Amino acid sequence: MNHLRTLFGQKVREIRLSKEISQEELAFLCGLHRTYISDIERGTRNISLDNIQKISSALKVPPQKLFDFSTFQK
Amino acid sequence: MNHLRTLFGQKVREIRLSKEISQEELAFLCGLHRTYISDIERGTRNISLDNIQKISSALKVPPQKLFDFSTFQK
Repeated sequence: MNHLRTLFGQKVREIRLSKEISQEELAFLCGLHRTYISDIERGTRNISLDNIQKISSALKVPPQKLFDFSTFQK
Repeated sequence: MNHLRTLFGQKVREIRLSKEISQEELAFLCGLHRTYISDIERGTRNISLDNIQKISSALKVPPQKLFDFSTFQK
């Protein structure tokens, strides 16, 4: 049902871990709360475009990359 | 400042027009208001992931496609 939230959260987590950034660090870089980042990664938050932009900037990846699910689909 | 909203809105509009769908039709397909679609395309709304998923489904494109700005960057 909220499939996109789940995929998006997995992707944020994948990229964050690949860059060896903790949830705390990412939260700090985004100006968001650590629990918010945790919720995003678990797919329990309906994140908006402005915050997607913050995460994209903090992770130094284009927004499109956060929607590239080819790495874990099948 | 809200650059991503603007790019996202332009992209939705580009894909919608390429499929010859009106704002009214897209709104109906998404279960959203026409003014909401209009606001999204003008970049004045901070759309969330759940509604991005609705637009993606209605336009029959993967969410990633809505963040592919290569067609109008430079």
